[in-house]
Amino acid sequence: MSLSSGFSPCGLITLTTDFGPSDGYVGAMKGVILTRAPQIQIHDIAHAIAPQNVAHGAAALRTAAPWFPIGTVHVGVVDPGVGTARAGLLVLAGGHAFVGPDNGLFVPVADVLGGPDEVRRLDTAGALASVVPPRLSATFHGRDVFAPTAAALADGSITPMEVGPPHELAALEALPAVGDRTATGIGQITHVDHFGNAITNIGAEELSGPSDSPARVEVAGHTLEVVRTYGEVGEGSFCALVGSEGFLEIAVRGGSAAKALGIGPGTVVRVRPR
Amino acid sequence: MSLSSGFSPCGLITLTTDFGPSDGYVGAMKGVILTRAPQIQIHDIAHAIAPQNVAHGAAALRTAAPWFPIGTVHVGVVDPGVGTARAGLLVLAGGHAFVGPDNGLFVPVADVLGGPDEVRRLDTAGALASVVPPRLSATFHGRDVFAPTAAALADGSITPMEVGPPHELAALEALPAVGDRTATGIGQITHVDHFGNAITNIGAEELSGPSDSPARVEVAGHTLEVVRTYGEVGEGSFCALVGSEGFLEIAVRGGSAAKALGIGPGTVVRVRPR
Amino acid sequence: MSLSSGFSPCGLITLTTDFGPSDGYVGAMKGVILTRAPQIQIHDIAHAIAPQNVAHGAAALRTAAPWFPIGTVHVGVVDPGVGTARAGLLVLAGGHAFVGPDNGLFVPVADVLGGPDEVRRLDTAGALASVVPPRLSATFHGRDVFAPTAAALADGSITPMEVGPPHELAALEALPAVGDRTATGIGQITHVDHFGNAITNIGAEELSGPSDSPARVEVAGHTLEVVRTYGEVGEGSFCALVGSEGFLEIAVRGGSAAKALGIGPGTVVRVRPR
Repeated sequence: MSLSSGFSPCGLITLTTDFGPSDGYVGAMKGVILTRAPQIQIHDIAHAIAPQNVAHGAAALRTAAPWFPIGTVHVGVVDPGVGTARAGLLVLAGGHAFVGPDNGLFVPVADVLGGPDEVRRLDTAGALASVVPPRLSATFHGRDVFAPTAAALADGSITPMEVGPPHELAALEALPAVGDRTATGIGQITHVDHFGNAITNIGAEELSGPSDSPARVEVAGHTLEVVRTYGEVGEGSFCALVGSEGFLEIAVRGGSAAKALGIGPGTVVRVRPR
Repeated sequence: MSLSSGFSPCGLITLTTDFGPSDGYVGAMKGVILTRAPQIQIHDIAHAIAPQNVAHGAAALRTAAPWFPIGTVHVGVVDPGVGTARAGLLVLAGGHAFVGPDNGLFVPVADVLGGPDEVRRLDTAGALASVVPPRLSATFHGRDVFAPTAAALADGSITPMEVGPPHELAALEALPAVGDRTATGIGQITHVDHFGNAITNIGAEELSGPSDSPARVEVAGHTLEVVRTYGEVGEGSFCALVGSEGFLEIAVRGGSAAKALGIGPGTVVRVRPR
Repeated sequence: MSLSSGFSPCGLITLTTDFGPSDGYVGAMKGVILTRAPQIQIHDIAHAIAPQNVAHGAAALRTAAPWFPIGTVHVGVVDPGVGTARAGLLVLAGGHAFVGPDNGLFVPVADVLGGPDEVRRLDTAGALASVVPPRLSATFHGRDVFAPTAAALADGSITPMEVGPPHELAALEALPAVGDRTATGIGQITHVDHFGNAITNIGAEELSGPSDSPARVEVAGHTLEVVRTYGEVGEGSFCALVGSEGFLEIAVRGGSAAKALGIGPGTVVRVRPR
């Protein structure tokens, strides 16, 4: 039953891939979806995820997917393990559905949406056999498995229960471990965006200390002021601020903080009371 | 009243940003629009505007927006001043609506459409309070202000009059001043396109002199023939021609004129009678 | 009559261009289509085709277009000869329609679809005169000819017969000739995708020899194993495999084979029995 599964399709599919802007792979997925479900609306999230960079794709999905209507099916394909034993997944979280490889791609967005409500392994030998082509490409499951599964979910011709058995979600193993991440105020850069802003896994709530003094942030040997917006510092000045998703980020006004400071995914960031 | 405002929505929204192809920011805007107005059609114009390059974004909007149906809402987000006192705007011109920051981004397209018919400052404490989220991000007005305002305009749930008070449009301060631009036949390169063609602010009408002899164009120490199309010159040859928007541009067949001549935004270009 | 022409429009248009992600040219085409045919659904295939690289665009169209529903109109604009005497085309193949320049761009995709069923030259002085603007830009036929023609075909306001007279399709002259391409097992790299995989024109059927031993592949002085998927080789190892479109490709797990081997379009590839 649709209600028990926590998913009621709204007719939208989003696409997030590392296929780039110059090949036909994304188009092939769109064609497969539209051939199966002509009434579905498809929306691009991003297709220039750094090749095979699962953490980068996970960040884009976390940024965008929660804002779509409940009932959207989000297809994510950043899939270095295509053709290996890694499973294909359906993840339900907060009324959204996610379809793609089991490599951690959907872990951060599911967390933001309150944690996964249900995880199922795509079993192309089960009910999905009528959805996927008889012979699957070994290298392009985006076209042959994920796109048709998403189309069938989005137009209601298959239910989440039918795609396959319950499954344990693989973790996103993208960051080198930081021993004391469980302490507040110490974290890492998770990804760098198009502007060169370095986004951390330190939440806004970790910035408030016992006193009213604003905190400072240490990264790569620099101590930065925490400001509310880029506009508060001069052109070319570094700063730390809470970004639009509620995480601390390191920025430089009018330039790339990642380049200027030589920082990137994994760099340790510390919050210090003033 | 919709007629008096010069805007009657047709259900289309376009997006032009410098958010790049690799993050979730554009997707977040699409999600916000579709959550508020599920029937709206969203079309991407361009998302790889050079970061924080307002003149570049203004050129893309001028190239594309006028071709859309009357009643389209165009969202433009190239917004180096986000979080500062710069206003958010609604500009109406030629039956189109433009929503984004007040930094000159919409000035060239409004000019092409006959000049702005109406300019209003977005007042998120007024009628828009029911449209935008209760807490606005200081760094992502595209998601929290411009996208929901555009959605509300596109589905008719708010009228242009309601978004805020009349406002004076800021100029596009992108080019170094050229003392004698008021003279015809002397101008500057405004932007360089993806092919490396350098587009100027010299209109086609400035090329015709008193005689019938075709003009020549001087740029960066070179004197170029004015041709009708790239095909008239040999591979690798420089030429000047009137581009598809009616402005003089400098091109090289099969290559990048900007790179080959070392020219770019601000470079002075002169038309000389033969 | 629509049936005799082998084309019955389904209301979809796809766009494939070398216009890049940073200008308004693609947006102008979308606007033209929607102004003429507001009910049409437009889907991007790819817009970062290498500038004026017809073979690259042809590869993207071959990858994507066949997966779209029968009745889709595909607009392709990689057009180094714009403004010269090269014709504009309508090609029908396998129930799909292709609109763009006559430079070979549609030859590979038409081949995959069973060969062109009909080829017509766009005659803008004939029935199309009511579809295209009165004055055509000499440099932007995508906006002034191909987009409006596609819109008129997609909404049924013009039939394939009406666009112009029958025409002989120009070949795709993209690869240096290989004398013995008629022999099986000897071919060339046709293009390199976003991941750096080098795709050849050697079909899967050319890999099976008289014996059951798997073949090996020679390229750039290397002899590579043929595997079923990237996952069978170690990180950083080269391999050859049949890609998702049925052609042999050269890959390196987790990297760019084209860069690592110094190979690209035109490089000769040989299949050897073990």
